[in-house]
Amino acid sequence: MLVIMRADASQEQMRLLGEKAVSEGFRVRAVPGRDLVFVVTGERRAPDPATFAGQAGVAETRSLRHGYELASREAHPDDTIVAVGGVPVGGRAFVVVGGPCAVESLEQTLAVARRVKAAGGHILRGGAFKPRTHPYSFQGLGEEGLKILAAAREETGLPVVTEALDVDQVDMVERYADAIQVGSRNMHNFPLLRRVGRSRKPVLLKRGFAATLEEFLGAAEYVLAEGNDQVVLCERGIRTFSDFSRNTLDLTIVPALKQVSHLPIIVDPSHAAGRRDMIVPLSRAGAAVGADGVMVEVYEDPCVALCDGAQAVATDDFDLLMRQVGRVAESVDRPLYKKASRTLRAVAGSVA
Amino acid sequence: MLVIMRADASQEQMRLLGEKAVSEGFRVRAVPGRDLVFVVTGERRAPDPATFAGQAGVAETRSLRHGYELASREAHPDDTIVAVGGVPVGGRAFVVVGGPCAVESLEQTLAVARRVKAAGGHILRGGAFKPRTHPYSFQGLGEEGLKILAAAREETGLPVVTEALDVDQVDMVERYADAIQVGSRNMHNFPLLRRVGRSRKPVLLKRGFAATLEEFLGAAEYVLAEGNDQVVLCERGIRTFSDFSRNTLDLTIVPALKQVSHLPIIVDPSHAAGRRDMIVPLSRAGAAVGADGVMVEVYEDPCVALCDGAQAVATDDFDLLMRQVGRVAESVDRPLYKKASRTLRAVAGSVA
Amino acid sequence: MLVIMRADASQEQMRLLGEKAVSEGFRVRAVPGRDLVFVVTGERRAPDPATFAGQAGVAETRSLRHGYELASREAHPDDTIVAVGGVPVGGRAFVVVGGPCAVESLEQTLAVARRVKAAGGHILRGGAFKPRTHPYSFQGLGEEGLKILAAAREETGLPVVTEALDVDQVDMVERYADAIQVGSRNMHNFPLLRRVGRSRKPVLLKRGFAATLEEFLGAAEYVLAEGNDQVVLCERGIRTFSDFSRNTLDLTIVPALKQVSHLPIIVDPSHAAGRRDMIVPLSRAGAAVGADGVMVEVYEDPCVALCDGAQAVATDDFDLLMRQVGRVAESVDRPLYKKASRTLRAVAGSVA
Amino acid sequence: MLVIMRADASQEQMRLLGEKAVSEGFRVRAVPGRDLVFVVTGERRAPDPATFAGQAGVAETRSLRHGYELASREAHPDDTIVAVGGVPVGGRAFVVVGGPCAVESLEQTLAVARRVKAAGGHILRGGAFKPRTHPYSFQGLGEEGLKILAAAREETGLPVVTEALDVDQVDMVERYADAIQVGSRNMHNFPLLRRVGRSRKPVLLKRGFAATLEEFLGAAEYVLAEGNDQVVLCERGIRTFSDFSRNTLDLTIVPALKQVSHLPIIVDPSHAAGRRDMIVPLSRAGAAVGADGVMVEVYEDPCVALCDGAQAVATDDFDLLMRQVGRVAESVDRPLYKKASRTLRAVAGSVA
Repeated sequence: MLVIMRADASQEQMRLLGEKAVSEGFRVRAVPGRDLVFVVTGERRAPDPATFAGQAGVAETRSLRHGYELASREAHPDDTIVAVGGVPVGGRAFVVVGGPCAVESLEQTLAVARRVKAAGGHILRGGAFKPRTHPYSFQGLGEEGLKILAAAREETGLPVVTEALDVDQVDMVERYADAIQVGSRNMHNFPLLRRVGRSRKPVLLKRGFAATLEEFLGAAEYVLAEGNDQVVLCERGIRTFSDFSRNTLDLTIVPALKQVSHLPIIVDPSHAAGRRDMIVPLSRAGAAVGADGVMVEVYEDPCVALCDGAQAVATDDFDLLMRQVGRVAESVDRPLYKKASRTLRAVAGSVA
Repeated sequence: MLVIMRADASQEQMRLLGEKAVSEGFRVRAVPGRDLVFVVTGERRAPDPATFAGQAGVAETRSLRHGYELASREAHPDDTIVAVGGVPVGGRAFVVVGGPCAVESLEQTLAVARRVKAAGGHILRGGAFKPRTHPYSFQGLGEEGLKILAAAREETGLPVVTEALDVDQVDMVERYADAIQVGSRNMHNFPLLRRVGRSRKPVLLKRGFAATLEEFLGAAEYVLAEGNDQVVLCERGIRTFSDFSRNTLDLTIVPALKQVSHLPIIVDPSHAAGRRDMIVPLSRAGAAVGADGVMVEVYEDPCVALCDGAQAVATDDFDLLMRQVGRVAESVDRPLYKKASRTLRAVAGSVA
Repeated sequence: MLVIMRADASQEQMRLLGEKAVSEGFRVRAVPGRDLVFVVTGERRAPDPATFAGQAGVAETRSLRHGYELASREAHPDDTIVAVGGVPVGGRAFVVVGGPCAVESLEQTLAVARRVKAAGGHILRGGAFKPRTHPYSFQGLGEEGLKILAAAREETGLPVVTEALDVDQVDMVERYADAIQVGSRNMHNFPLLRRVGRSRKPVLLKRGFAATLEEFLGAAEYVLAEGNDQVVLCERGIRTFSDFSRNTLDLTIVPALKQVSHLPIIVDPSHAAGRRDMIVPLSRAGAAVGADGVMVEVYEDPCVALCDGAQAVATDDFDLLMRQVGRVAESVDRPLYKKASRTLRAVAGSVA
Repeated sequence: MLVIMRADASQEQMRLLGEKAVSEGFRVRAVPGRDLVFVVTGERRAPDPATFAGQAGVAETRSLRHGYELASREAHPDDTIVAVGGVPVGGRAFVVVGGPCAVESLEQTLAVARRVKAAGGHILRGGAFKPRTHPYSFQGLGEEGLKILAAAREETGLPVVTEALDVDQVDMVERYADAIQVGSRNMHNFPLLRRVGRSRKPVLLKRGFAATLEEFLGAAEYVLAEGNDQVVLCERGIRTFSDFSRNTLDLTIVPALKQVSHLPIIVDPSHAAGRRDMIVPLSRAGAAVGADGVMVEVYEDPCVALCDGAQAVATDDFDLLMRQVGRVAESVDRPLYKKASRTLRAVAGSVA
């Protein structure tokens, strides 16, 4: 249930509202970024708007049918802008995240990071903890990988996003990264979602490869409900019968999400397609459909990468990608993000 | 098997090649648009390239692993351009096809056609024979609908594409339309594919909603193998578990097809999404990913349409679509098709 | 809309009902196998039960929300039993259909048919017209194949079911076969469905490989609406992401169909799995879940078959299949069909 | 790589093999239940069988192409039998697991457990930690729920299986339960898989709802590789386009798994279908296809259950289920498990 207080509602009235809700077994959360708007939820039954409508200071109460109240546009009509190490995701500017699938060495990571930076990329990605189908595959460098990423940020100035696979890894990832990725395989890992919900770092939440929109926003809501409103969604392809791509990039979810949620959404064509030659065209399509950014894998030499070279562009192709995606993004009035001048940065900082 | 003759091969040498192939139980087809290149196929066994390599006048023989030899880039490296009533599909220019789902009346069709024309659309679509899930639903106006489409072409100059559901309807559709549509539900209707393969009108072949790339090109090959090389492919969404769109538009197939086939490919976001609000963003994405055109449903008033108003844009939105898709198409160097000057038209005519 | 007349309704009252319906633009069909029950449908709008409730002789009118009125249990509560050349499908007895994928020669077909018969199989299947993904694959022997099937029936006494790919093939198939198969790829071929709906032979309708229950019954309704109430449904696997079977046999649809429809349903594990080693276990599962029969491919030597040896059991395995399926079918009180004694046959004939 | 030592291989020879493997960067694991058989794996490259073939005491080395060596039949040809609190899963006897979706109270759980026991069920299931799509839904009673399950075991003698959602919950679940469930949403939670791999309790691993066979066995391998060879697989339905069931129960995976793996596999029709009326027929099908057991949800009154009443059978239907599944299981020579006599129990204990 959504509760909107009157503009002149007093602190005391809000306290009383909370008291009443708690006494009836409900929980109240303030909607981040909106004064005077609250979400009231119940575990075993839904609160009745009529019961709260007459409460002093209340302007309006409204029943919300879904389980993603905080993620919904009904609670938060304006777009959310998430600042990842100073780079605003979800504003007017389009953002490109690039980097190796797995961090393999300082040398490799620095080489890629420099090229991402030189080509105009905005954020560095790279896995230190890798979720792998088989236990005997390379599982990532762990903390050593995180240190390498931090060193690459130091040199290039690019903020870093990297994945935590488990509650116990979050502390460490938080120390080194600018944003914490929750991967597709963990979209339903609710303890992990709760844990990153208590982090002060932004969260990049990837859609599970068979997740519905309802489930995707339900997962985001776990993070928001713990108090972290810095969530970036990421579409990365769904499982289908396709015989020519690893997964099917579901760009249809971008306008669908934009309609019901205020959270930014980026697309990841590397994991979706699993084929190098599709990354540039699908990135262009992501920009055209209205996404807030793309995330791609970049390798110095995709053919020798330890994990998933087949789904990475070479650094030369990344230059091409930046140019082509830049043109498409501009054609939909979403120019590539440029490191803001002092004034603009201040604005971005304040909205985020 | 592909057989490439030497530049100086004689007619007699080609005759002998054909004779040899037939005597061994194979069939030979010339690759349209390429001199001196032939495809040799066998029903019960594949021909052996070695057997034909030494034949007089033969420059090269090559085994092709697939069943879509004529549709493959190996046989025909250059893009095919299909002229639909003078509009080239598959060339550099981007093409927009619009019109009502079903032809319901002359008045309705003319009103939509005029708006499509005024907004800069290139081809008129509309169903006279409608494939409907239930036998009691409106099945289309039949020949009356075809006459209405022809009248709309007469007035607006827009070429017309419309569907034939069955072999027996092709004669009639051929008489009135500029291109014959084979719908998703008929992608595997092989007698129908053979029949339109013997037509002199271009064929718009829609992907079945659970068809693989292999099957899609196999269906196109049925048309090509009968001698009709004017085939436009159309992606229109695949069946998935999606809870927010009717189907999932699979834009990934566009670069996949471009790599292995020379046939033009357009996308249909109306049937894919089944939601009006997604048609414009998905059309932009289609242009960005590298498709040769989009096909959308347009209604004067989508809310009262007999069939599928939910998947049609209103005529006002169609203006917006043309502007936005036009900008994106230009950003990938595929400007919207403009009715060609005399010289250009002659070129388009000759390539098609 | 369902209209149930009173037990004492007169012919004249029924004539008047029909007249009223037609005058309002509707169509009336008698529900086969039920006296005094009618389905009234409209193409552009649904009839209003209230309008017909007061009509003389009418006991009850009821709105049906779906488009498969004649296929629904609401119109026809009892199970339909379809007689295929004297073999009742849909009654208490469980039925096994076996035979080669494609008819390749008289010798091959006779050999398989004899083994099917000897093992206790009930109906012979075999394709004379084959739907093939690529135009250059073996397309079946055509009429020669139909003659071979008829010869195999002559010798073994097994009724024959075989596929027609197109309206134009139905006449010929009708002449030779005991039941006409409409394949998965043609489930949405509405002209073909209408044509077999005017046949006097039973129809075996296979589910399209991405068809919903609603669409499957809609396709059956096309046949029923033309007057042919002898329809057997067949589940043959749906398209999924499976990496270990060609398709996924959807046994869940069997109880789902049994609940909403009176039509018999059999399952085809050969096409679903595409793997020989799964045919026997999936046939057992089909019997256990409540299907009315199974249809499998049988080859003398599956490894040399022209089409799909990989999805066929060898004749020795067919003996095993009959024994194992027989035991399971008995455990759910659906014993294998035994050629009926005179009396029982008469009964089966009358219900069908 | 598989290494099979000679029957007369000495301890010293095995030590030397291990030393060699480790010195080359590989890891060696003994295959549980097989003397003298080892699996050698490498993180960054695969070991070369030729290098180890000549090693003293080695009878045979063989490359295994997959990443589930320990789960494969190649390493372990005989079926594994897992003892859950004394109940053998994977032997000849068929096993039924029943209980509420969520543990809601002592009274409810005891009532259901008594009925499961009375009807002949073998293992009690029930969730104390519930994975829920939305954060505001009932999340389970936690440790209180575990205590209730233990009390129900105390009274009925039924062993208990229940889910742990996270590494941090495993300690607690281990204390109370006889087997630890890893749910579908956690099939790719690799830290959790590793943690239960170090448990001494059996693990019930549910297939992710879009997991391939390869991924499913890869997940099992994570558990096995840590030393816990007591893994029971569970098929629970996959995501498809189905319009009549929540998921599609994929019984095809049962024979596919039986062919490549020695691990027991049970099926869960409750979560697959999401419809009460399908649970009994699908359970019968599970028995017929060759599964080692079924797991179903049972409620005193499914209509008032807090979580998922729609997917539970009433206790009366559970009696019916036991009778019908019992008959089918017997028809495939897999009689329902009966509490073993002293001698048999000892055997079951020793194999497990």
